[in-house]
Amino acid sequence: MTTNNRASVLTSPKADFPRWYQDVLEKAELAENGPVRGTMVIRPYAYGLWERMQAEVDRRIKTTGAENVYLPLFIPQSYLEREAEHVEGFSPELAVVTHAGGKDLAEPVVVRPTSETLFGELMSKWIQSHRDLPMLLNQWANVVRWEMRPRLFLRTSEFLWQEGHTAHASREDANAYALRIHLEVYRDFLQDVLAIPVLVGVKSRRERFAGAINTMTCEAMMGDGKALQMATSHELGQNFAKAFDISFTSASGQLETCWTTSWGSSTRMLGGLIMAHGDEQGIRIPPRVAPVQIVVLAVKDDERTLTTAASLVSELTTAGVRARLDDRTTQGFGRRATEWELKGVPLRLEVGPRDLEQGEATIVRRDGGAKQTVKLAEINTTVLALLESMHTEMIETARQRLAERTVEAASVAEALEAAKTGFARIPWQRLGEEGEEALNREAVSVRCLQTREGTVPGDEDHDSELIAIVGRSY
Amino acid sequence: MTTNNRASVLTSPKADFPRWYQDVLEKAELAENGPVRGTMVIRPYAYGLWERMQAEVDRRIKTTGAENVYLPLFIPQSYLEREAEHVEGFSPELAVVTHAGGKDLAEPVVVRPTSETLFGELMSKWIQSHRDLPMLLNQWANVVRWEMRPRLFLRTSEFLWQEGHTAHASREDANAYALRIHLEVYRDFLQDVLAIPVLVGVKSRRERFAGAINTMTCEAMMGDGKALQMATSHELGQNFAKAFDISFTSASGQLETCWTTSWGSSTRMLGGLIMAHGDEQGIRIPPRVAPVQIVVLAVKDDERTLTTAASLVSELTTAGVRARLDDRTTQGFGRRATEWELKGVPLRLEVGPRDLEQGEATIVRRDGGAKQTVKLAEINTTVLALLESMHTEMIETARQRLAERTVEAASVAEALEAAKTGFARIPWQRLGEEGEEALNREAVSVRCLQTREGTVPGDEDHDSELIAIVGRSY
Ligand SMILES: [Zn+2]
Ligand SMILES: [Zn+2]
Repeated sequence: MTTNNRASVLTSPKADFPRWYQDVLEKAELAENGPVRGTMVIRPYAYGLWERMQAEVDRRIKTTGAENVYLPLFIPQSYLEREAEHVEGFSPELAVVTHAGGKDLAEPVVVRPTSETLFGELMSKWIQSHRDLPMLLNQWANVVRWEMRPRLFLRTSEFLWQEGHTAHASREDANAYALRIHLEVYRDFLQDVLAIPVLVGVKSRRERFAGAINTMTCEAMMGDGKALQMATSHELGQNFAKAFDISFTSASGQLETCWTTSWGSSTRMLGGLIMAHGDEQGIRIPPRVAPVQIVVLAVKDDERTLTTAASLVSELTTAGVRARLDDRTTQGFGRRATEWELKGVPLRLEVGPRDLEQGEATIVRRDGGAKQTVKLAEINTTVLALLESMHTEMIETARQRLAERTVEAASVAEALEAAKTGFARIPWQRLGEEGEEALNREAVSVRCLQTREGTVPGDEDHDSELIAIVGRSY
Repeated sequence: MTTNNRASVLTSPKADFPRWYQDVLEKAELAENGPVRGTMVIRPYAYGLWERMQAEVDRRIKTTGAENVYLPLFIPQSYLEREAEHVEGFSPELAVVTHAGGKDLAEPVVVRPTSETLFGELMSKWIQSHRDLPMLLNQWANVVRWEMRPRLFLRTSEFLWQEGHTAHASREDANAYALRIHLEVYRDFLQDVLAIPVLVGVKSRRERFAGAINTMTCEAMMGDGKALQMATSHELGQNFAKAFDISFTSASGQLETCWTTSWGSSTRMLGGLIMAHGDEQGIRIPPRVAPVQIVVLAVKDDERTLTTAASLVSELTTAGVRARLDDRTTQGFGRRATEWELKGVPLRLEVGPRDLEQGEATIVRRDGGAKQTVKLAEINTTVLALLESMHTEMIETARQRLAERTVEAASVAEALEAAKTGFARIPWQRLGEEGEEALNREAVSVRCLQTREGTVPGDEDHDSELIAIVGRSY
């Protein structure tokens, strides 16, 4: 009954993936452009998603022992580039405040592109003794990097993110912590909450974060076969600590330099969620992160239907399900069903007078569209079981696509061919930095280096044993 | 045992309240100045407090039906002052970005001092029909108002806040909603979580928010008898909706103008929490908002003490108490006890070998310093009961101070005299707008107007029956 008007709503993702992406952002009321170029308005439905994502990431970060702080939006120009004579000398990604308090500022201030330098200054001050270590800090904030080719959630002049900065007494401790964030915070969240399978590994020297001695990354495949870097963790060695004089007195009284890490994830993950799971009908929200897990749709405007629908919502809510009532019976049923499909709510419970006579209702899964009749007496157990299996099936579907679209390549040419539709796996020794450069010329890059088992390489793994994952990326 | 070095730690609040405030911010590691004038670094302990405050306020906001959004940091200059020729023409509180993307911007952009104008533009677009009403939106974000005389938490160039903006079909609905936010979100949070008694009422015309037809406020008395405005809710009538063309088609097909409200609270409440409850020993955190409700302090470095202390922490945690272990036995016991007092943790459990032999430990209340011996077998019930009664006693203590320092005044002169140490209550008819002006010349203001019963005046209350609450303020 709803299929008739679906076709007109969305561009097909197979026909034009970028256009489909723009369409769903608008039609599902997720986000729109702000009035200043490159800025973004996150609408309630998408922000509700972000709040849940943030809470899940934050809980995992806190479990590792890190604490949140808030550092200022504004950074003195001198912190970022002490020698710059005029603001035009700055990196083009910076936004610079030159007027405030009703006059020209003696020293312009930069809107943070990251809070890295502030963390450096503060850690230098806050860390004195080995007893202050490890210092594990994180911040949730907006940052600004002026964007010439903005794309909502993926590249915007302002975005929301978390950035963690930690200082440790030894390289081993810093490495272990960065790895823990990589696996127990990011990978765990992306897979266990967002149902997105990720490839974990390290960046090649060319793709590594400036100043890092090691960058770990979670890479995911989107619906069009392109890669999206979902989150990264960096080991900064002692480079950063030396630049900011972050040192400590050891137990034996020696003055030593700290080993630091930094790691981040952003609203870009929202773009990843949309592009990893979306389909012809709209977005599909994995059940564990869905602000609304089931919508209870009153089909007709009769007393009993409305009462039953409302009581089902409260029954489900009591059982811990995030349920919402749709009793807008003045609007067509088909139109409302299409809207919830567009918004990707995992389950739709259709409650109508005919089914009610049998003590039943119809439950529709967003992932495959499968319908089943459910006894109202068993609604809670049925819904909880469906939500659980949907998570498993969504990540399984994404894993299958990843597997199907990943090709074993033996040469640069084969890797380039594979990157037209997905990823290539190629021995890093065979590719090498020259091969990597050749790929880059065709807008294909090394997404990460893994061991043959798909794990994160450590000191014990030789370059000759690593596999490069190669693809186009956002 | 800890009293000996206390005196040197803090300035007495009775001797010099502003200096005491600065001292506690530093010594309790709450906040410090950022490198750009007027900006603020919120350290982990204070940010943990803010997170809990934010969660409590947010939950109450959502209960009223509002949803969160995120709007851009940058606002086109033209939105704020369409006729301004040059950025110097702006209000001095604005920070203006003139350079970005590596060059001078054709149109400078302003860092949001509020998102009011953006909400206006968006609501105008998002609201079409009466079915879209009420539209209830809220945003948590940083805002910037350049500050010449900054004071951490109270007045900073950047601060964190929430701003709610709602649109309604009728004045009655807008009024009822603004009142609900005033009482069920702000008053409830301030009293039931922060244990700060607040005076609720409306602002005088002179103190009212520009453009509002009514401003409701929660006013609290600080430790020095001065007032702090903790949160406000505004009815904007149709003024704002007319300026931004926020209109809707009614059920009968008429085009009508919306009635809007706005309401906000900020990190200023953190300053209020410190100044309302702090004492000679430091800050005192009300138990319901405390990130750490009880610290379990291992007195000595012996096996049994450490094991018992750790297991008490997990026992308390399981019982839902936010407990933390202090096993830094290499540092003096007195010094650690003083530190926790400074940080205002509600309860301190001192665990030492001698008490343990009796199956006991000593529990110390931060509010009055009272000590009691507690049987370890009864630890959970004792702690839960103490936390509950501490909340009640803290708000009661604050209520007594408010009562003691509030004087019934019959003239401007009497009100001025009372404002030296606290508040005055004076019939609004007797004071009048002329009297208000006279107070203002002495830096005393009307904090709010109430009914004789202390409630928020409504349409049915005549001016002649209102009481003005008068005082100095932050
Ligand atoms: Zn100028
Ligand atoms: Zn210039």
